Formats: sequence, structure tokens, C-alpha cells
Amino acid sequence: MIKDIIANTTNIKLTVIIRRALQGVASNNNPYLTLILQDNTGIINARLWDVSATDIEALVAGQVVTISANSLLYNNELQLKINDYQVLSGKEAEKHYQNLVISAPINVEKEWKDLLKTVEDFDDAILKKVVLHLLKQNEKDFTTRPAAVRMHHNVRSGLLWHTATMLKTAKEIVKVYHDREINQDLLYAGVIMHDFGKIWELSSQLITNFTLQGNMQGHIVLGSEQIGLACRTLKINEQEPIILLLQHLVLASHGKYEFGSPVLPKVLEAEILHQLDNLDAKITIIDDALKPLNSGMATNRLLALEGRIFYKHEGEKKKK
Amino acid sequence: MIKDIIANTTNIKLTVIIRRALQGVASNNNPYLTLILQDNTGIINARLWDVSATDIEALVAGQVVTISANSLLYNNELQLKINDYQVLSGKEAEKHYQNLVISAPINVEKEWKDLLKTVEDFDDAILKKVVLHLLKQNEKDFTTRPAAVRMHHNVRSGLLWHTATMLKTAKEIVKVYHDREINQDLLYAGVIMHDFGKIWELSSQLITNFTLQGNMQGHIVLGSEQIGLACRTLKINEQEPIILLLQHLVLASHGKYEFGSPVLPKVLEAEILHQLDNLDAKITIIDDALKPLNSGMATNRLLALEGRIFYKHEGEKKKK
Amino acid sequence: MIKDIIANTTNIKLTVIIRRALQGVASNNNPYLTLILQDNTGIINARLWDVSATDIEALVAGQVVTISANSLLYNNELQLKINDYQVLSGKEAEKHYQNLVISAPINVEKEWKDLLKTVEDFDDAILKKVVLHLLKQNEKDFTTRPAAVRMHHNVRSGLLWHTATMLKTAKEIVKVYHDREINQDLLYAGVIMHDFGKIWELSSQLITNFTLQGNMQGHIVLGSEQIGLACRTLKINEQEPIILLLQHLVLASHGKYEFGSPVLPKVLEAEILHQLDNLDAKITIIDDALKPLNSGMATNRLLALEGRIFYKHEGEKKKK
Amino acid sequence: MIKDIIANTTNIKLTVIIRRALQGVASNNNPYLTLILQDNTGIINARLWDVSATDIEALVAGQVVTISANSLLYNNELQLKINDYQVLSGKEAEKHYQNLVISAPINVEKEWKDLLKTVEDFDDAILKKVVLHLLKQNEKDFTTRPAAVRMHHNVRSGLLWHTATMLKTAKEIVKVYHDREINQDLLYAGVIMHDFGKIWELSSQLITNFTLQGNMQGHIVLGSEQIGLACRTLKINEQEPIILLLQHLVLASHGKYEFGSPVLPKVLEAEILHQLDNLDAKITIIDDALKPLNSGMATNRLLALEGRIFYKHEGEKKKK
Amino acid sequence: MIKDIIANTTNIKLTVIIRRALQGVASNNNPYLTLILQDNTGIINARLWDVSATDIEALVAGQVVTISANSLLYNNELQLKINDYQVLSGKEAEKHYQNLVISAPINVEKEWKDLLKTVEDFDDAILKKVVLHLLKQNEKDFTTRPAAVRMHHNVRSGLLWHTATMLKTAKEIVKVYHDREINQDLLYAGVIMHDFGKIWELSSQLITNFTLQGNMQGHIVLGSEQIGLACRTLKINEQEPIILLLQHLVLASHGKYEFGSPVLPKVLEAEILHQLDNLDAKITIIDDALKPLNSGMATNRLLALEGRIFYKHEGEKKKK
Amino acid sequence: MIKDIIANTTNIKLTVIIRRALQGVASNNNPYLTLILQDNTGIINARLWDVSATDIEALVAGQVVTISANSLLYNNELQLKINDYQVLSGKEAEKHYQNLVISAPINVEKEWKDLLKTVEDFDDAILKKVVLHLLKQNEKDFTTRPAAVRMHHNVRSGLLWHTATMLKTAKEIVKVYHDREINQDLLYAGVIMHDFGKIWELSSQLITNFTLQGNMQGHIVLGSEQIGLACRTLKINEQEPIILLLQHLVLASHGKYEFGSPVLPKVLEAEILHQLDNLDAKITIIDDALKPLNSGMATNRLLALEGRIFYKHEGEKKKK
Repeated sequence: MIKDIIANTTNIKLTVIIRRALQGVASNNNPYLTLILQDNTGIINARLWDVSATDIEALVAGQVVTISANSLLYNNELQLKINDYQVLSGKEAEKHYQNLVISAPINVEKEWKDLLKTVEDFDDAILKKVVLHLLKQNEKDFTTRPAAVRMHHNVRSGLLWHTATMLKTAKEIVKVYHDREINQDLLYAGVIMHDFGKIWELSSQLITNFTLQGNMQGHIVLGSEQIGLACRTLKINEQEPIILLLQHLVLASHGKYEFGSPVLPKVLEAEILHQLDNLDAKITIIDDALKPLNSGMATNRLLALEGRIFYKHEGEKKKK
Repeated sequence: MIKDIIANTTNIKLTVIIRRALQGVASNNNPYLTLILQDNTGIINARLWDVSATDIEALVAGQVVTISANSLLYNNELQLKINDYQVLSGKEAEKHYQNLVISAPINVEKEWKDLLKTVEDFDDAILKKVVLHLLKQNEKDFTTRPAAVRMHHNVRSGLLWHTATMLKTAKEIVKVYHDREINQDLLYAGVIMHDFGKIWELSSQLITNFTLQGNMQGHIVLGSEQIGLACRTLKINEQEPIILLLQHLVLASHGKYEFGSPVLPKVLEAEILHQLDNLDAKITIIDDALKPLNSGMATNRLLALEGRIFYKHEGEKKKK
Repeated sequence: MIKDIIANTTNIKLTVIIRRALQGVASNNNPYLTLILQDNTGIINARLWDVSATDIEALVAGQVVTISANSLLYNNELQLKINDYQVLSGKEAEKHYQNLVISAPINVEKEWKDLLKTVEDFDDAILKKVVLHLLKQNEKDFTTRPAAVRMHHNVRSGLLWHTATMLKTAKEIVKVYHDREINQDLLYAGVIMHDFGKIWELSSQLITNFTLQGNMQGHIVLGSEQIGLACRTLKINEQEPIILLLQHLVLASHGKYEFGSPVLPKVLEAEILHQLDNLDAKITIIDDALKPLNSGMATNRLLALEGRIFYKHEGEKKKK
Repeated sequence: MIKDIIANTTNIKLTVIIRRALQGVASNNNPYLTLILQDNTGIINARLWDVSATDIEALVAGQVVTISANSLLYNNELQLKINDYQVLSGKEAEKHYQNLVISAPINVEKEWKDLLKTVEDFDDAILKKVVLHLLKQNEKDFTTRPAAVRMHHNVRSGLLWHTATMLKTAKEIVKVYHDREINQDLLYAGVIMHDFGKIWELSSQLITNFTLQGNMQGHIVLGSEQIGLACRTLKINEQEPIILLLQHLVLASHGKYEFGSPVLPKVLEAEILHQLDNLDAKITIIDDALKPLNSGMATNRLLALEGRIFYKHEGEKKKK
Repeated sequence: MIKDIIANTTNIKLTVIIRRALQGVASNNNPYLTLILQDNTGIINARLWDVSATDIEALVAGQVVTISANSLLYNNELQLKINDYQVLSGKEAEKHYQNLVISAPINVEKEWKDLLKTVEDFDDAILKKVVLHLLKQNEKDFTTRPAAVRMHHNVRSGLLWHTATMLKTAKEIVKVYHDREINQDLLYAGVIMHDFGKIWELSSQLITNFTLQGNMQGHIVLGSEQIGLACRTLKINEQEPIILLLQHLVLASHGKYEFGSPVLPKVLEAEILHQLDNLDAKITIIDDALKPLNSGMATNRLLALEGRIFYKHEGEKKKK
Repeated sequence: MIKDIIANTTNIKLTVIIRRALQGVASNNNPYLTLILQDNTGIINARLWDVSATDIEALVAGQVVTISANSLLYNNELQLKINDYQVLSGKEAEKHYQNLVISAPINVEKEWKDLLKTVEDFDDAILKKVVLHLLKQNEKDFTTRPAAVRMHHNVRSGLLWHTATMLKTAKEIVKVYHDREINQDLLYAGVIMHDFGKIWELSSQLITNFTLQGNMQGHIVLGSEQIGLACRTLKINEQEPIILLLQHLVLASHGKYEFGSPVLPKVLEAEILHQLDNLDAKITIIDDALKPLNSGMATNRLLALEGRIFYKHEGEKKKK
């Protein structure tokens, strides 16, 4: 497994999936490939020197391969020099799938049940009907898809992970702010639906990418549209205020125009939803960047946090 | 008619519609009303002093009234002092409607026919089918609705006016740039659909206002959604690239995130559409502000043009 | 009490404190005063016409007065016309104090105890010592002061209210994100200290205002400085990393330079603290603005939320 | 010709002009040159390895050379490896000039005549006199110069191409908006003069570059100054309002301060001019970037369009 | 004189010039005028009630009048209620001019001589010739004109005052930074020319206003143009690098695009010039705003300083 | 010495300090080191090829080494290829210190005396006491420390150099603006204290870097805190207005929130201080960038000046 590789080992054997393949030309004027390889324990860079046109055609993103390689240290990072490789396809490739993809650190079945339970407990009959319909209709996608191409939650079941985490915080917020006028069904429904459109925005291959639809419309609009379509199917009037509010929560969830929300939060629940989304994204991005570091080290500039650098201090002090 | 009023006339009789009603308190501590009155020749401010609760309830936005008033000059603007008024309702009010609303300076029937002709001439069978369906299904609204609450094209048939003007420019652009790769059917369909969602965003009363749906979603999302629904009705696959592109043109038509587009133009036709929309809006806003001025005068700061002031010079010099 | 006033009542008797006093000139060229009056049930505008120099001198912000007045409706808001007034001072004024100031809707004693308990449970000995010292040394101020001049939490014990609420959410966040590396003692200490400097930034009079120190330095710098001084007193090395981190959390709590943080969050706990502060402020501001409205109404533009307008929908649906 | 080169050919012979020459050091510690070569069919990158000081001195921007080279594929782009070269100078170089420079895809003579005709048809005698004078005085430069160093219209006669295209659109705009108060002579004169200062801003060598004057003042100021000087020569009062307006159109043509306009558009014609300039630039930049791509591919980030990526869809559908 | 007026005096006699005249309507529905009056000791607001059309026509900006009025206190500011007035014109008005306009607190003759001396000491023959020519040709305007319509240096000889002050600081900067490569002739010439275009930008009436030329081009472009014209007259090549640099210093003097510079500082002297301009403007604006205040008071928000408020502390402590 | 190196020399011997060490991998897959070397005559890049783990450990920032190398020209810049090296430590290294560090071009002793003299001449007894105390307590650090890690004044005694230069300009400003209300003691004290916190923000090693304290709080807050602590030590009330004002000047010295000032200038002296700081920084940065260039050349984009490029013209013309 990738996580077991140590430096300066020869003849390592691995079955991996190619995340990205980049062509270069070495100073001897021969082409080479930089490959980003993944299995469910991690990611590693690899190089294959002096490649032929056949190599370039064979080694593309999404391809499963078995490689033989040597490991070395480059700029303090492990790297592989590939000596030989074999392309796997069809059945042969499929039986490796579960070992190739990183999954969210959650119990999918439990989180899914909790999610359904939350919806079944809604007092608002319309919200309950619409959200349950959409969840059940898209159960497989909703429970397995990642929530991003790069960055936070770009793992199997990342969408469920992100949604379930926000839902937990939302419930606590509702308790802490019990004396404010928060419609909790609306807030919870908004949390569950806010990234739902990602099912159509991102492709379902092992290696996630944007669909044409995703590029042209974006998940926010796609999610809102799904709510409208569900109403049609369920013979619910799309002009019901609670439906318009739910669509508003989805459309306004990015909170700012410059992040692609066509309307800004105009009801309290929409503002809270945006804040919770922001909080979850930022904690996850920072924590992801700090995890591999030792105390005293600093991350690279994090683009999603205005280019800030974060420091790893002594870290977590937990109660016994 | 409002346009015929001159200063210092007594006992003027007018039938008008109330655009807005604002309550104030005079220095004698009695309430009064400032009314913005409209007929199809213009708009004028009026005051009714020492109002009762009954007056306040009766004189609201959208109400048709016959008034008796005196005219005076206030800060170089005409104003009415209302002496007496009579509320009109039902049939009685309706028969005045056509005299109360300003219409776009276009031949609605001719523009509508030209528009349909343009679509019927599309080579792209899918675009033709979808756009024709939507136009015909919404003919009455599309040909009578304004394109805005305030500002440019806030007149009867303003939506058709704005759309038809942009379409004319689009056709000329396609000719001038005949050697660039512009899909003209897509561009024309985008122009026709780009403000289509305003039918649902704005209320259809004589006095236009935002609907709940408009406030919560905005016309850009509503227009894109209509295209999706039309596909369903017409059994056209919503994933057809040309449909996704058309929706993209609508969603990207504001051109910048801060103007409420959830995606920015990503195909050439989307960028052109945005530029044409911008051009038509700016010419109309500046021209509207300059129209009532004499040579040498300046407009107030125009918010839609970054607060700039525009000067009226000697003006148009036309060929004989 | 102010909350009991209804329109068009004569000869109302009230003891109130003056929040602000503004001079004007009526159209009869005589000066008048607009007074903003407060008791612990609310705030109301009042006018005193034809004032003398003596009146102007007597009726200033912070003064306690007993008034006789008539109520009227002005622009849909209640207003008082003062007929007569009597200035209270010394003991006489003081015995009204508790009826004049609005208090936070919390059990101050309980929240204070919970706060102390949280600190006493810290594992980190340095943080425990420093934070306990500062809390106990400033108990009276910390438990009674408001957290703002205008806007959110501008009530008696507002500082404690804001701090205690954030602390509750912080504890829930720590639970939801139990698998991330959050130093909970540091986070809780940061929450408790982040607005501590407001004790020096704002004056302690009944009517809150900025001190010279507050204007020249701001509460963020004042709070950080207090931590340094406490270390001196307690003979703790000010260069202890945990102390520098706590000061960093306070200095970075506004999260952005444009909100007056001299450093931006550079550790995970600082980012979370900023997000929680933001969340509490925004919920409170929106909720305060929505509270007095009926369903279907909209707030004025909220400056602290980029000028957005918020809509009151049907509101809270709670479980039985 | 450059456009005829295919990969993996040896011993290619070409006469080209060097656009840019960049020095590097190979991993064998020997210097090499990266050359950007141009003829009138395209542009290609080339490398010359192990260069001497003599090579570096000889192979500079603007030099015409005959090379012998091999072609290869590097990152999916064609590249040349130069084996041998010969420097051409004087007469020898000049006879290749017409084969080395890319020209605008227009009939220069015809466009120039149309331009003159437009000016001769002006009703405004002053504008006619001034603009004709400037055009005739600078005919050679105006009809041959590029309109930019990099980016759009950086080709022989690019200035005429850009100007003539905008003039065509301007004429159509005047027709579509025939009921608005547009002074068409002023608009057309502004279009013709708006980039006129580029004659002095950019050097007239085969390889365009900024002059000292261009760097210190910019073409906008230089163009406005030329209008003033023409008035002096023609004994026209420089304070004539129509002259000040024409200078304003030139100075305001970038439309925004951040693009270097010292005044923003303050008359309708200035705003239209800016919009047309913007439209032509953006269509040209996007089309240039899309041209070499196949359907389904995307451009790099286009800096002049806020870093957006554009997609090439199936493209143009023209009427039969 | 205006500075001698105290509150609640009747029958004050004054000869003043009207800076601005604004029409209003009183609550008795009669029009009135608000006049801003000026003499060389200050500025005061005045009201004339129940005005006729004749009054409105007579009392316009720039008019010299003798008034009889009563003083009163309005919002802590002195105000006049005009009882009677008499219009002065022709010779009669002119003999009051010197008492109506505030002059810069400088010895004009001495500053003018020092300025000329500085230029005569230039080593650079071209700069000396051009700047001397322009100064002498425009001596009267340069030594009497204000430097602004509103705000800083909007007084007689304000242009000379601002220029001479900057020149003094420039000379000290050159001394302090004697070891940096500053071309002092260029810097001093730039300082002297940087606002020279204001002679054409602003009208020369007693009450300053923007000219058409000023509105359409701005003083920065006008100043640069004057340098070019002077070269023509003096038969100096306009392409001399030192001339292009001087024009650059003028064009870049606002330092930022958003303040209307078409080019940003690209040589060290241009950057210094911008900084000195900024420094002088800011000191003057703040000092002007602080002057009338007592210790402990604060200014209104100063728009030219990003809306900041400034505090007057105990103030200047000078050496004996 | 580094300044004496010329291209293509073999076997150069130098004793230098390593400013930075960066690891790379050559195309032969062997690691190499890029070293930035410094002595008191300049800085140069060097490469060591085929390094071992031992080399990497030995050659780190701050290490003093004697090298043997060859010089070559790379991209028009001198570079060294290291053949051999020897690590110096302890006493051996120390005796080279004075030859390794670049010092500010000032007479430290004289500037320090002048600085003390300025403070001793203060009329304000409190400012005199506090500033003298802080200066004397930190004399060694204040007179030897650099004022930055990179960029301007990053040399030995850079802090004193920057402070002394600003103080000179401040004194001239006070003279030029003698008629404005500037408290000169406050301004001078502010200048002296404004970067004082850098003593704690930056480490005192030969190779400067940020301390943890510097990273977490920043020099602005650290400087303000030092003033508070000095008051404690000297038994001066920290609430003295003049102390609060001095702290304000330090905190506001960056002038804008985005540069890390938690409060913006609110008194005239604070605004002047910010402007002087800005002026000194910009002159120094531009001059540093221009110094090594020949006439006619341009700098790279200067990040601290919004990415502008500066041109070196013929330069300084001094009086004989």
C-alpha cells in the first residue's frame, strides 16, 4: 500500500489508480510522464522516463495499473521511479476498486439512517415529503459520492460526510439558540439539500471531475432544480412558500455573490446554513493541511483561506 | 394628462394610478401623504395634507383614483396639492387602465412576429422547438410585461422591447463578426430567453413588484428552470449539450458574480450576450436620464453607472 | 413602562433615561429636542417643542427624567410629545436604575458559575491560572457590562451573554469535530478572553460609550495586553507558547484586517473562534431585526450584513 | 512555412524573424536559447543548445534568420531543435519581410476608403476637417500598424482592422438605437481616433514594442494631444465644444480608471464607444484562443477576461 | 465681517458674495432660499423666507449682495435670517471683491520669487526653459487661482500655496535622501507643473467651478498638454526624454488609477511627487477640519480620508 | 568578496554565510542544493551538485562556510558552482561575522546620539521619560537590529537607519507646516517607537527571521505593549492621554487595516507618521531596485508597489 512505502526501496509492487498524468520533456529531449497515483491509503507522485507514444496513450487518468518501481526522496517528499507497469482492465481492474479509493472516516450506514430519521421527524409535511423523496431516489449517489474534485471532502462518501457533519452542528445551534426564531425543519432540509446538486455536477467515475452540466450550471442551480422537479413528481405546488424558501437556502448557501450564489441569504436560516457550510469547509481544509505536519511546522499558503499559512502548535489536549 | 400640467393651475382633474404612497408628519404634527401618481403620459408627485386613517387606507400603491388638485413648483419640479379625490374600483377602474400605464415605444405585434420568425428560421431543431414552445406558451406575458421594477424598461411590453432590441444588435454583430465562430442560433435563443424568468420574478399587477419567488430565486434561475421544464414537456433530453449551453447563456447573462450570475460566461456566445445586455441597459438608462434635460445640463448621479454624472451636449446630429 | 404605551393617549407618566438628545429647529424657527428615551422594557422617540437654553442643558444623554407626555403615531411608529418633565439626580435617580436598563435574557449567576467551572476544568495549568485570575479580578465588570454601544448585545450583561453563548457552541463544535486536532482549552480560553478588552474600551455609565483608550487602541489590543499583565502579576513567563497563542486568538478574533485584527488567524483554534464570533453576531443581529416584525414583512437594510434585507417568513416550527 | 511543419521531421529549412530570445542553462551547465520564431503563417518555439556568446549576441528579437532544424512534439506542442542558422541582414533580410509578418484578414485598401468616406460624410464641419487631416497625415502608419504588442490585433494593419470593425458595429448601433439622442458624427470620430495614439505608443519595427513616450504617457493621452495639435495646424479653436468632446471620447475610451482612463465616460457617445471597444476586444481574444482548439477542449485562463476559461462547443452553425 | 457675528443679534449689515443658492418649500407651502454666503473672513448659512420668482432669479451663485439680517443658533451653528437685501453689480460690486474672497496665508510675491529662483537654478537647460516659459506666460493665473472647488486650498492663490509648500518639502526630502538617485531638477519641475492644468480646469470667476474642458479632460491631461505646446513654441523637440519624463510626472501625480492618473509612477521622482502631493493634501484637509474644534471634539467623517473621524487632542506643543 | 566576482573564473575562495538553502533534484535524478550566500559586500546564488545527506544537513541557513567555486553567467546573473566547502563553527565562525553582514550606510553612534538628543529636548515630561527609558533599556538591540526580513532596511542597524531617516523628515515637515497644529513631541516619539516592536518580532541571529511572538502578534502590538510596560516600571499612569496617543501612533502606523493596523490614524500626527513611513519605505525599495541597473533598464515588478515596474533614466543631476 502507498502508506507503507519508505525511501530508497527497489522493486516495489503496487496496484494503483492514476489520478492525473502529465507529460514533460527531459533535458535529453526525451518525453517522460509524471503520474499521480492513488490507492485507499494515500497518494504518491511517480515518474516514468523515456516514454513512448504507446505509454502516453495507456497511462491516463482513471486507469488502473500494477507497477514495479523504486522509491526515492525528492524535496523531502517520497517519489516513485517506475521501472515497469501493466495495465488492468474490465473485471481485472474492478476487483481492485475497493482498495483504490479513499473513503470518508464515517459509518455510512449509520449516518444515512440518522439522516433519514431527521427528515422523518420533520413537522412540516411538505418538506418531509420532498426531501425524503429526493434522498431515497438518489440513495446510492448520495451515500457514495465525493463532495469535491480537489480540496475538502474529495473522498468516497464525502458528500454524506459533509452533510451529516453540518447537520449535527445545525442541531446543536438550534439548541444553543433555542430562544431565536429558527424554523428547524427548514434549516435541516436546507443543510441536507445544499450540496445535493453535486450528484449532477461531478462525474461518478472513480476519478471525480466536472460534468458539462456542472461546468455550465453549477451544483447550486442543479440542486434547486431537483427540488422543483420533485414537487412536479409529487404533485406539490412549486409555489408553496416553504418550497421557495428551501430553494432559496440552496441557492444562497455560498453566502456571497463571488462564490457563485445568485441570491444572498435573505432569511435567518439561509444565513445560518451558509455559516455552517463555511465552518465545516474551513475546519476540514485547515485540519487536512495540518495533519501531515509535525509540531512547529507551517502549512503552505491555503488558497481557500485567502492564502494564509497555518501553524501546527503542540496540538490537541484532550480530557482523560 | 400629467404631461399637460403647468404650474400654478387650480382645480386640475385627473384619473391616475398610485405608484407609491408615503406617510409623513407635518410640522403641525398632523399626518400627510406623499403620493407618486402615474398615467400613460408621465409621473408626478402629489401631497395630501391633514389625512385621516381612512385616507391612508384608501390611497395605496396600485389604486386608481380621480383627483382634483392645484399645481405648484417645488424645487423646480411640478407638484400637485390634492384638494379632493375619489377611489375607482372594479370595472370603473379597469376602463382607465390603458390610459394609466406607459407602454414601450414599439409596435408590439410586429416585434413579436419578427421574434417568432427568427426562431422559426433556426437550423438547430432542438433550440427551435424549445424556444417556440416557451414563447407561445407565455405569449401574453412575454409581450406585455415590463422588464424591471424601477429603471430601464419598466414599462408595459418592456420585456419584449428590451429583448427585441438586443436581438437586432445581435444579428448585426453576427454579420460584422462573420469570420468568428459564433453559433448564431444559440446566441439568438440566449438573447430571447435571458430575461424570460422575469415573468415569474415580477408580479403582473399594473404596479410591478417582486414576487416571493423572485426575491428567493431571481429571474436568472427561474429562466433556466423554465427551459428544463419545457424539455420535460417536449420529451427532449435535458442533458442535450445545446440545452445545457442555452441554460448557461441565461445563467451567465449578468456576466459577473456580483450581479448575481452563479456561473460566468464560459462560451463565446455567453460573453457576447452579456455585453449586448449591458450595452442596451446602459444606453437606455443614460438616454432616459438625458431626455428631460436641456443642452448643457447634467444628470444626477446614475447608480447603475457607478454613480457617474452624464452631460447633455448639443445632441443628435442626423443626416437629412 | 415604555412597552405599554399605545397611540393617542394623553398625560402618560414615565421615568426614563435619555439615550441621545438631538437639537433641531422647527419651521417656526424655534428650537426643539428629539430625545431617545429608554427604560428596561424598550426604547421610544420623543419630541419637546419650543425649548429654552435651560431645557437643552438639562436634557442630555445619561440623564434620568420623569416626563408627562402624549403619544401619537408617526410613520407607523409610536412617538411621544413631552408636555412636562422633571430631572432626577443623585439617590433619587439611582433608585430607578434597575428599571431603566435592559438586561440580557440570561441567568447571570448561573452562566458565571458555568464559565468558571469550564476554566477550572482546564488541563492546561497556565491557561487555567491566567484566565481564572483575569475573570475573578474583573468579575463585576465582566458580568454586568454590555458587549457593544449599538447593535447586538448592547444590554446589561451583554458581554457575559455573548461569551457564554459562544462557549456553548464551542463545546458542541469540539464534540462534532472530535477527530480533528483542536486544543479545547485554548479554544475555550480564547472564547472567554476575545471580547474581554471591551471592559476598557467602553465606559461603564448607564449609557455606554467609547473611552479614549477604546478609541485609540480598540478592545482587541486591550484584551491582549491584559493577558500580558496578568502573566507579570502571576510570575508566568509571557513568552510561554500557550500565552502567545491565547493572545493570538484574541488579536485574530475579528478574522479579517478590515475588521481591525492586526493578525489573521494562523492556528485552527483562532479560525474557529472567529467563525463562532461571526455566527453569534449575525444570528443576534438578524433575530433582533426580525423580532418586532410580522410574518411577510422585511427588515431595513442591515449594515452589518452588507446591507442585506431579511424577510420574516412564517417562522419557528418547534416540536411539541 | 511554419504552418506546414509536422512532428519528427529532420532538416527543415525556414526563413523566420525572431520575436523573442530567452537564455537558459541546461542541466549540463551549458547555456541554451529558447527562440520564438515567426513567419506570416504562424509562430513556433525553438531551442538552440550549447550556445556561445556569439550565438547569444546574434540571435536577438527582430533578427531575420534562415535555420535548419528538426521538429519534435513537446507537451503536445510542436517545437524545433535548431541544428544550424544563418543571419540575414540589410537588403537580404528585407526581401523576406512580407513573408515574415502576419497581416490582418482584411482588404486594407477597401477598409481605408470606407473609413475616409465615413468621415467625408460627416455633417459636422469641424470634426470632418480635423479627423480627415489626422488620417491623411498619418495614412501609412494608420493602415499598417498593429494595435497591440501582445494579445488581440497584434498583426500588421491591426489598428485599421480594429478601428474598421468597431466602426461597422457603431453604424449598426446607431440604426438600432435610432430613437436615442446619439450624435453619430461624434461617435464615429471617437471610434476612429480612440486608438490613434498607438502610432506613437508603439514602435514601428517589425517586432512591435512600447516606445519611451508610450511608456511614460500612454496612447490615450497621446491621441488626445494629436487632436489638439491638429486644431492648431488647422487654425481651429481648441476650445470648440465638439473638439473637447472628441478628446473626451478618446480619454474615456478605456471606460474605467483601472484601465487607464483619466476621465470616465460623461456623455452617451463616450459610454457607447467604450462598450464597442470592449466588445471587439473580448470577441477577438476569445475567438483567438478558441480557434486552434478542437470541440470539447478548453482554453487556458484568459487574463484579459478575469482569468476565465472558455470552452469550445460544436461551434458555428451557419445558414446554408 | 462674517467672523464677527454672534448669536441672537438683530439688524446685522454685511456685504457678501453668494457661494451657492438652494431653493426649498416651507411647510406653509411657500418657497424659501438657503444661501451660503462668504466674505474674506468666513462662510455662513442664511435663509430668506417666502421668496418670489424675482428673489430666486436675483440671488444666484457669484452675486455680490448687501444684506440686513438677524442671527440665530441652529444645531449649534450660527445662521442668518435675511430681512432685506440689495444686489450690487458692475463697479459697485468690484470694489468689494478684495473683501469677499479668502486668500491663502502666504506672501504671494515672495513665494512667486522663490519659485522662479528655484527654476532659474536648474542645471537642466531644457527644463529651465520650458518651466520658466510656462510660469511667466501664466503668472497672473498661477499666482491667484485656487487649487480646488471645494476642500483643501480652495482659496485665492491656493494653487501657488499648494505648489510652494510641496516644493519646500521636496527640497528637504532631496537633502534627507541625498544618497539616493533623485534628479532634483526633474522633481522640482514636476512639483511646479503637477497642478498647472488647474488653470484651465477651473473657471476664474470669484466662485470657482469646473470648466467644460476641465470636466471633459481633467487638469492632469491639460497640464501635460501645456508642456507639449510650450515645447512647440520654444522649438524644443517634444520627444526629448526629459520632456517625456516631466509629462509623466504630471500624468502620474495622482498615483493611482482610481484617482485619475492614466499612468502610474514609473520613475522614482514620480513616486516621490505623488507622495508629497498626498501628504500636503491630507495635512491640509485634517488641519482645516480640526481648526474650528475645541480640544476633545471630533471632526465629521472626512470623505477624502476614507470617511475617518479625527480627534482634536490638546494640540501643539511648541518650543519656547 | 562577493562584489569582486567576475564570470568564468575558476577556483574562487570565499568565506560566506548561508541565507537560504533549497533542495532540488537534477534530471539525472540526483539531489542538488541551491544556496543563497552572503558577505558584507553582497549576495550571490550558488549550486552544489550531487549532494549527499551529510551535505544537506551541513549546509543550512545561518551556517558560515568557506567555499571553493567556479563562476558562470546564468540568465545574465552571476552564479557559483561550488567545488568544495568547509564548515566553520564556534570561535572560528565568529571572527568572520563582521565581514558577513551588510550594515546600514550610516554612522550608528552619531545617529544614536542625535536620536537621544531629540528626546531629551522634548517639552513633554512624560514622553521624554518613557521614550528615553525604552531607548536606553534596549540600546544594543535598537542600534544593531535590521528593520525587516526581506526588502527594505534588512541590514545591520536597519532599524536605526529607518527611524533616524524618518525623524529627519519629520523635523522638516514640522518646519514646513509650522502653522498647522502638530504636537511635535508626540510626532517624534511616535516615529521613534513605531517599529520598536520589531526587536521582539524578529530574531537576533545573523540571519533574521520571524519569532513565534512576531508571527502571533506582530511588531505593532508588541511595540504598543512595551510602552504600557515602561509606564508600569516608571510608575506613570497608563491612562495618561499622551500615553494613549503614543500607543495610538504606533498601532495606527501602517495606516490601513489591510497592512495590519488594528486602528486607523485618528489624530493628525498619526496620519503624518504613516505617510512618512510610507515615503521612506517606497523611496528605499525603488532605489534599491534601481541601484544595480544601467540607464534605460527597468526593474522587475515590485510587489510592494502594486507590481509596478520602475525605469532608470539618466539619473541624478546634482549641483556642482
